[in-house]
Amino acid sequence: MAKTKSSAQSAADEAVLTQFAPLIYVAWADGTLTKDEAARIRRHVSKGGHAEDVVARVLDRWLNPEAPPTPSDLNALLERIRSTPRVRQEPRERPEPAVDQPRVLEAMHEVENALGVGGVDTLSMLLGRAHSDARAAASFDPDRMRACMDGDRAAIRERVFKVMHRPIFNIHRVQAMSLYREQVLACLRELAREGIGAIAFPKEYGGEGDIAGSIFAFEALAFGDMSVLVKYGVQFGLFGGSVYQLGTARHHRKYLRKIMRLELPGCFAMTETGHGSNVRDIETTAVYDPSSREFVIHTPHENARKDYIGNAALHGRIATVFAQLEVRGENHGVHAFLVPIRDEKGAPMPGVRIEDCGEKIGLHGVDNGRIYFDNVRIPRENLLNRFADVTEAGEYVSTIPSASRRFFTMLGTLVAGRISVAAASNCAAKAGLAIAIRHTAARRQFGNDDGPELPLLSYLSMQRALLPRLAATYALDTALYDLILRYAEAEGGDVREIESLAAGLKAYTSRHAMDTLQAAREACGGAGYMMQNRIGGIREDVDVFTTFEGANAVLLQLVAKSLITGLREQFGEMRVWRLVRYVTARATTAVAEKNPIATRRTDPDHLRDPDFHDAALRFRENHLLNTLARRLKARIDRGATPVEAMNDCQDHSISLAIAHVERVVHEHFRRRLEACSDEALKTVLERLRALYALDRLESDRGWFLESGYFEPGKAKAIRSEVSALCRELESDALALVEAFGIPPRFTEGQLVAAAH
Amino acid sequence: MAKTKSSAQSAADEAVLTQFAPLIYVAWADGTLTKDEAARIRRHVSKGGHAEDVVARVLDRWLNPEAPPTPSDLNALLERIRSTPRVRQEPRERPEPAVDQPRVLEAMHEVENALGVGGVDTLSMLLGRAHSDARAAASFDPDRMRACMDGDRAAIRERVFKVMHRPIFNIHRVQAMSLYREQVLACLRELAREGIGAIAFPKEYGGEGDIAGSIFAFEALAFGDMSVLVKYGVQFGLFGGSVYQLGTARHHRKYLRKIMRLELPGCFAMTETGHGSNVRDIETTAVYDPSSREFVIHTPHENARKDYIGNAALHGRIATVFAQLEVRGENHGVHAFLVPIRDEKGAPMPGVRIEDCGEKIGLHGVDNGRIYFDNVRIPRENLLNRFADVTEAGEYVSTIPSASRRFFTMLGTLVAGRISVAAASNCAAKAGLAIAIRHTAARRQFGNDDGPELPLLSYLSMQRALLPRLAATYALDTALYDLILRYAEAEGGDVREIESLAAGLKAYTSRHAMDTLQAAREACGGAGYMMQNRIGGIREDVDVFTTFEGANAVLLQLVAKSLITGLREQFGEMRVWRLVRYVTARATTAVAEKNPIATRRTDPDHLRDPDFHDAALRFRENHLLNTLARRLKARIDRGATPVEAMNDCQDHSISLAIAHVERVVHEHFRRRLEACSDEALKTVLERLRALYALDRLESDRGWFLESGYFEPGKAKAIRSEVSALCRELESDALALVEAFGIPPRFTEGQLVAAAH
Repeated sequence: MAKTKSSAQSAADEAVLTQFAPLIYVAWADGTLTKDEAARIRRHVSKGGHAEDVVARVLDRWLNPEAPPTPSDLNALLERIRSTPRVRQEPRERPEPAVDQPRVLEAMHEVENALGVGGVDTLSMLLGRAHSDARAAASFDPDRMRACMDGDRAAIRERVFKVMHRPIFNIHRVQAMSLYREQVLACLRELAREGIGAIAFPKEYGGEGDIAGSIFAFEALAFGDMSVLVKYGVQFGLFGGSVYQLGTARHHRKYLRKIMRLELPGCFAMTETGHGSNVRDIETTAVYDPSSREFVIHTPHENARKDYIGNAALHGRIATVFAQLEVRGENHGVHAFLVPIRDEKGAPMPGVRIEDCGEKIGLHGVDNGRIYFDNVRIPRENLLNRFADVTEAGEYVSTIPSASRRFFTMLGTLVAGRISVAAASNCAAKAGLAIAIRHTAARRQFGNDDGPELPLLSYLSMQRALLPRLAATYALDTALYDLILRYAEAEGGDVREIESLAAGLKAYTSRHAMDTLQAAREACGGAGYMMQNRIGGIREDVDVFTTFEGANAVLLQLVAKSLITGLREQFGEMRVWRLVRYVTARATTAVAEKNPIATRRTDPDHLRDPDFHDAALRFRENHLLNTLARRLKARIDRGATPVEAMNDCQDHSISLAIAHVERVVHEHFRRRLEACSDEALKTVLERLRALYALDRLESDRGWFLESGYFEPGKAKAIRSEVSALCRELESDALALVEAFGIPPRFTEGQLVAAAH
Repeated sequence: MAKTKSSAQSAADEAVLTQFAPLIYVAWADGTLTKDEAARIRRHVSKGGHAEDVVARVLDRWLNPEAPPTPSDLNALLERIRSTPRVRQEPRERPEPAVDQPRVLEAMHEVENALGVGGVDTLSMLLGRAHSDARAAASFDPDRMRACMDGDRAAIRERVFKVMHRPIFNIHRVQAMSLYREQVLACLRELAREGIGAIAFPKEYGGEGDIAGSIFAFEALAFGDMSVLVKYGVQFGLFGGSVYQLGTARHHRKYLRKIMRLELPGCFAMTETGHGSNVRDIETTAVYDPSSREFVIHTPHENARKDYIGNAALHGRIATVFAQLEVRGENHGVHAFLVPIRDEKGAPMPGVRIEDCGEKIGLHGVDNGRIYFDNVRIPRENLLNRFADVTEAGEYVSTIPSASRRFFTMLGTLVAGRISVAAASNCAAKAGLAIAIRHTAARRQFGNDDGPELPLLSYLSMQRALLPRLAATYALDTALYDLILRYAEAEGGDVREIESLAAGLKAYTSRHAMDTLQAAREACGGAGYMMQNRIGGIREDVDVFTTFEGANAVLLQLVAKSLITGLREQFGEMRVWRLVRYVTARATTAVAEKNPIATRRTDPDHLRDPDFHDAALRFRENHLLNTLARRLKARIDRGATPVEAMNDCQDHSISLAIAHVERVVHEHFRRRLEACSDEALKTVLERLRALYALDRLESDRGWFLESGYFEPGKAKAIRSEVSALCRELESDALALVEAFGIPPRFTEGQLVAAAH
């Protein structure tokens, strides 16, 4: 009898659950539900003809804030919604509306139409979580700002956000690493299923052929769990990108579909324990054996193992392995090979040894590993042979005669990665600023003796900690956006300038993100030290961006070298050194000659004039470039090797690279706002632009004073103007972070495992 | 039969285990044992008359690198060593020495004499882990440097390190929070048992009456797991210190012994969710009820709950609660009360609600919690009544008439905490530098085309990232050491200057630690992102120091206010503003008048002259102080409130505070090295001093140029000199971190749980 009753009960429960599945799904979609919210939802739902006790039982089970459903419960719920025909095939008849529930029903209805996704922010708003304060105080409409900044990204962002709102993406940051990694893999499957992994690949293989779109998708993912982001980048960007860009049709046909569907999880095995940023000197060997028409991949010693390789510890089945190619006893430099590392069952292939890198500072959901090869044989066809090949007979052939040029062409595959990392870093800065600015606008401390306490954000030191970084984040957003579009258009063309800017922006933006997150975390005080505040977790993850895809100091020197090369090309190798001397002298005097009062003008019109900012940033870059060239020349004349000369001037090179990046970023920001037709937006963007420029000039005023470009009074006036701009932007700060368009669930409260 | 055999086997095993216990203990004392090390130990041990198979079995079990004993296994082992009479009561007869094992035996012997502790670094050295390179290249003896820097701290450090080498202190950073917290509590018990929690307390209650020693002990603990450090600080420093310093004999008699023995774990409940650094406005109330002679402690609303309170979530049984005292309807401001929060069984007391703060960025082993009081009644005697009391009849009496003065006297209990946090921050910087400098000295990347790759530390950008921070760490060490001694001596006297310096050094050193750890982490590249590298974990923990015990920006403003007050007192309230104007003018012209060529001297003798550095740092401080006073005066004259005036000049105040700290730090460092009689030490310390001073001048050269103290050529010359000093210090860098005397187990490889 008990059994019969239980069955009947179970059937009734099932029917109720099916009815309420979309509502429950939406309620949990951002991962948290307070008691108050649960009560409000329950008060407002229609019983839909079911027995009251059954409804109560089901909702007790599913809307209990103290026992939230697990991600797999919610996934099962999503499957239920998907498999319920009326939801899928026709707009469900709206339940009889009670007077006080139209908004909940409307939300449900919307959600059901959208198959259970997309209604999250609606509910969030419904439950009163929106930051209405932001809109009231602001001088502009944050939605219009968002549209202006998002530009072509808007559609792809929404598409990615919709997938990211599924419950499987509710990732508890603090949980067993093994579970975390499996959940991240499941997220990747979800992304692959929705075609989000295929965006960059050519249409003929089932992709969308949209390079820019793929980076914009990456950027959207960066607002969510960054282990998902990085694993996505490894699979579809680094691994998939290497097969696509370094391989030829035979590889594309064989692998691309499987890669974008995640049927073939792979790795990008470039870094070795002994060689990080210096890829040219890696020591893994690939020796061609003409007798069997195979390459023999080998790790000659411990330090030459592949290290920190994402996807290697658990899930990767194949790897793009970078190795020194040796044919007939001759070394041809670094080439890339596809090497199977695990069989279908997940066991390592013969001769392949894999270790888990273990715990890291962050990215706990990415399975980084070390790979050792013991004379592993792979077919000749596994050489990714777009730029060079080995014939069956064992002859090395390449369309690029210069070994050095070939190497750098191959490394060009890293450019998309660097741009993506830069864009993701800026997303981290956005999230940190959104959290900190909301916190400091709400929290009050100290004040006049008789008045109420003042919001933290009204204090100058807090404004100076957060608002110039907010301005820089806006500025960088425009430069990164333009770079992404330019990279996508330039594919295959001369990309040296893009490569250089990608390297510079990666270094600059990852540094910016870390500094911003630290300032944001401190701005939140004790609350900022709680994981629930999220900033800590974001910082742990994004920290890796300062060293991977090329350590920042190395990348900035690449930028400097590229600028020196440009100078040489501009004037011709022979005459450059004499010219440098001339140009330097001219640049220095030019300031004083052309505009004798510019060095001491301190009126606000001048101080906020974009032409002044542009001229100052340009002067600094040119001056640093020319003096660097002169110093290098002097050292080489005295017998130093180029390496010694560069090392001697390393701090100078890095200053030049930063000056270059800042000048370029400022130009992009300026162009964007000049193209803006909404006056309200333009006014606030102009303030942000001026703040970015003046903050940069203030922070490097030592240099400007040294070079005579500023007189002391001007430097002081700039400092005052930075403070004045901070004050002007205070009341717009909330709306400016609102306009980042970060889905609330990613900045509101962190999921932490209850059981831990 | 099986049982009999098993018993016999077990007895034999026990005997063997007893013999080898000290050796096993030492082998595991630093938490890791490689296969190679285990093999070497086994090759060298004497069988001591036991059956070979039994020895093999026991060692298989206990020296298996793949199945390390748990902390509780090792604790049991320590108990075994302690309870073996011959070890405890007389030096054990040395086993018959075999030719090739004297060093192992010597180590064992030492260890046994020391009751199983203290031999760790000996074994470490024995196993070849010492950094012999450091000594070979250095211009000085790191042991002598260590002795010079440690000074009076040496003995207490060794005493604390010995306890910290016990296996219970082998803390896996990545483990379930609940286990982590219990292990940290066990460490605290161990420290209490050894009297390490009693050092600061008066002898009459079983303490040692050694304030300086207690801070030096804290500093030593900072090299180990920082959850232990912070929990130790909460129990013995904040909680115990509040009972001792704010209470009177009745509290001392009743509580101090229990506190220092950890029989009464307690909390320091000052911070509220709504009030962090602004203690004066906390909202918890303590209303005196004369009818029952009780205080009623109450949390009036959610935001007034006590938050982030260490020891609250699990272990605290009583708390020093700061609350607004109300007697006969009159508010007397913030006072401290002892409020029981849990009974003997650990259940919350009636009316007390406690929540766990949950996951944090770091300090995973500290049980931070929130406490709510619902009209909780405590006896009148629980008011900590050193500075104020309420009579039975309900009369408020205080020896300090001014409410404001009373409040700040009460807050004076925080001074020791701030000094301790500053000292611990510098330890974190030391650990980060030790790890990063060893890494970059060993790891090679890039180089001349035909030569070997160069060590990372030979690159100028790397030197500039690490070596000025190394110099600052040395400089801060001297200032902190002197401050600790001065604080200990000044107990009870006028401590305003000490309070101000404690606040300044806490803010400055915690910032320094975070910056240094970030630079160190990046210097280690991909390896730096691995938890095993340790820097990440140290940073996670030390991050909290930037905001607790007073947010840094707030503390720096305290320093500025204190300097302004000093100025006023120096010249008298009335005349100060006129004087300020005069002094400012004089200070500015003084430079040029007195030494017309000082602003442009660029010869090395001058650039490294400590008098030049001192004068520059002093000029900056005086100038910032006088101009700040003038700006405040101008605003107040125009009708601003003091709060508005200070807020308007907040960046100026913070610059002044930093300038003050740097001038003072430099003076301490200079005094220390001038007192040094070892020429080799003096030479390198002098380089570090010059590097610290010049790096500070370079980083603020904008200000010096603005104020006319430097001419452009001088600023450039300072930059070159910083680079030159970095180059000179490169070969001493390893020895300089060696001289920090950090026990190897705390900088070599991180324990991470295998099961995770």
